[in-house]
Amino acid sequence: MAYDWISFTTDYGLADGFPAICEGVIARIAPNARVLHVTHHVPAQDVRRGAEVLAQAVPYLPPGVHLAVVDPGVGTARRAVAVATLGGVLVGPDNGLLVPAAEALGGMVAAVELTEHRLEPVSPTFHGRDVFAPAAAHLALGRPLGELGPEVDPGALVRLPAPVTSAVPGRLTTEVLGADGFGNVQLAAVGPDLATAGAAPGSGVHVEIGGRSVEAVVGRTFGDVAAGAAVVLLDSAGRVAVAVNGGSAQAVFGGRAGDRAVVLVER
Amino acid sequence: MAYDWISFTTDYGLADGFPAICEGVIARIAPNARVLHVTHHVPAQDVRRGAEVLAQAVPYLPPGVHLAVVDPGVGTARRAVAVATLGGVLVGPDNGLLVPAAEALGGMVAAVELTEHRLEPVSPTFHGRDVFAPAAAHLALGRPLGELGPEVDPGALVRLPAPVTSAVPGRLTTEVLGADGFGNVQLAAVGPDLATAGAAPGSGVHVEIGGRSVEAVVGRTFGDVAAGAAVVLLDSAGRVAVAVNGGSAQAVFGGRAGDRAVVLVER
Amino acid sequence: MAYDWISFTTDYGLADGFPAICEGVIARIAPNARVLHVTHHVPAQDVRRGAEVLAQAVPYLPPGVHLAVVDPGVGTARRAVAVATLGGVLVGPDNGLLVPAAEALGGMVAAVELTEHRLEPVSPTFHGRDVFAPAAAHLALGRPLGELGPEVDPGALVRLPAPVTSAVPGRLTTEVLGADGFGNVQLAAVGPDLATAGAAPGSGVHVEIGGRSVEAVVGRTFGDVAAGAAVVLLDSAGRVAVAVNGGSAQAVFGGRAGDRAVVLVER
Repeated sequence: MAYDWISFTTDYGLADGFPAICEGVIARIAPNARVLHVTHHVPAQDVRRGAEVLAQAVPYLPPGVHLAVVDPGVGTARRAVAVATLGGVLVGPDNGLLVPAAEALGGMVAAVELTEHRLEPVSPTFHGRDVFAPAAAHLALGRPLGELGPEVDPGALVRLPAPVTSAVPGRLTTEVLGADGFGNVQLAAVGPDLATAGAAPGSGVHVEIGGRSVEAVVGRTFGDVAAGAAVVLLDSAGRVAVAVNGGSAQAVFGGRAGDRAVVLVER
Repeated sequence: MAYDWISFTTDYGLADGFPAICEGVIARIAPNARVLHVTHHVPAQDVRRGAEVLAQAVPYLPPGVHLAVVDPGVGTARRAVAVATLGGVLVGPDNGLLVPAAEALGGMVAAVELTEHRLEPVSPTFHGRDVFAPAAAHLALGRPLGELGPEVDPGALVRLPAPVTSAVPGRLTTEVLGADGFGNVQLAAVGPDLATAGAAPGSGVHVEIGGRSVEAVVGRTFGDVAAGAAVVLLDSAGRVAVAVNGGSAQAVFGGRAGDRAVVLVER
Repeated sequence: MAYDWISFTTDYGLADGFPAICEGVIARIAPNARVLHVTHHVPAQDVRRGAEVLAQAVPYLPPGVHLAVVDPGVGTARRAVAVATLGGVLVGPDNGLLVPAAEALGGMVAAVELTEHRLEPVSPTFHGRDVFAPAAAHLALGRPLGELGPEVDPGALVRLPAPVTSAVPGRLTTEVLGADGFGNVQLAAVGPDLATAGAAPGSGVHVEIGGRSVEAVVGRTFGDVAAGAAVVLLDSAGRVAVAVNGGSAQAVFGGRAGDRAVVLVER
């Protein structure tokens, strides 16, 4: 099965031309493939954040190959893999980066270790160029997964620990997943958790994140509260988020990935 | 009328994958549309700056759909609109963002409120994905404007207040529009204003911006003055700008959008 | 000879829409050309860094036109040129920016000054839009080099001074070329220099850069040393580089372009 599109996610940044070099490698192998850049601004070597951004994007991307490289272990014994799902193929390091996206695409159906069709000699520090981009390009051309290397048990792929969330009436305990460029702080909890805690639009809530706390109101969008006030809402990925209307929640009261977050609902 | 191109301007930043999610939505609806990214680095919620950047870009872009989202009022009662001009269609929030670009494209000939062909359920916080990108894609496919929602009077669209400029011999009073990445400070005044004030290439001028002042020379380009010296010139958008050769005018003497700027011409 | 691809490298940044304006100019002249953005984050007016990034990227890009603009002398007497090589055509200012890439593509075979097919009136401050992008587009369409302007002797093009490297057993003296987004500090020296100095995988080395020094081990990749430790390796461009596993070598001990760097090999 051939694909028109290759999505591309890394922590390379845009200053040094590394994403362009990979795109060039793709263009030389699969000239008709169209590259859709998801982001190259995953914080350096932050596999967890890369996994989140990718998993939240893939449901909206066209069916294709999803190339992702956040790879602190490049050149070491960690495996390079391609993972087939019902909704496309993921290519990247076996360090947990791909699994949430695979699940967002319907789950893993097969996987291989990438040992063939590499750009030789393979640089020990730039597998994006020499291993992953060529694999993505060959998959986009329609080359079968099995020609890229030996089969791997999808169940044996590295997984990141899942964030812990618990909800009881009056109290939601969860973790910060991250903050977007507007400073909206995204929590791991989802809509049903908020319902279990008893929060409904208009509810007053007390939010504690990483030792700081803020009074907020449950709303639908930023403009449901006054400028500068805090709102708790379901964001566009279906996660509970804390935002400040016209401002940055992260600037006001912090919130880093992995921070414990508690939402207390007034009754 | 179908279009090959969709230009895309936002304040989303490139870190979180939001522009890519919108591009994915477009690709699923209009697979042959080509997306040209104008910028995703409009300062957060700065509608005025977004309007300036878009208006200065559109005359050079291929005819097409121009999708722009700088939308502090997302999910509130502000309208989502598409605006037809002689030179293409603009899609975005009705908050003033689109009007200067529409005028740069020859003026508004029709407008609709976007109520159809949305991605349901519409997130109250991400209309770029669920309202604007689908509309842009359907317009690129050639769907008539009228199928996207009810007609709106273009004259009733929100407009930003225009900056005030006045010129008399010896004195030009205007406003700062913004500064580019090199630190060149762009004013609202245009070439004829400078002529009215009596400034010609080689004229010495005294520039006051936001309480700070600098001596400069009127020139054609940066290299017309010594390294580190200030030059007043007509920039590539036809605006009067203040620059420092090999440096940043903004770093030297400030200049934020809306600051009052006075150019006194020596006689 | 026509080309499908135009690569594009500048110091414009992505905030102001300048690269998009140039891409629009290209699309209007050569609608089928595909633009591959190398970077627009060359530090402002840093011709040397722009030349490095471009030269390291071009061997991996598809054959095509390589448009590059880092141009502190825009609008002055410096020439605008197109340079033909065996592997594609380069377009940009004659200030040293293009020559290393031309050599990476097999060497210069012809050059012209760009005097025709410009976008009139040419802005004295934005030759990317009015001179270089139109030239790149016309070349991609297959227009002969000679139609863009008068022939220029390639040997007369401006060249940047080459960095100086010397190696003797036990000691390698060279210069810093730059640092990438991960903080890996790239030196001008290449693999054979390291061999002449007697360094082999596992060798202990003492590295001095810009007055600071660090103990490091020669390795193949970042993970060859403990987290936080320094490693000297051959990077993906074949250059000697200093890195910190899981961290930034530049943050730890500096390293700016042009700094003298000495690697002493323990025996």
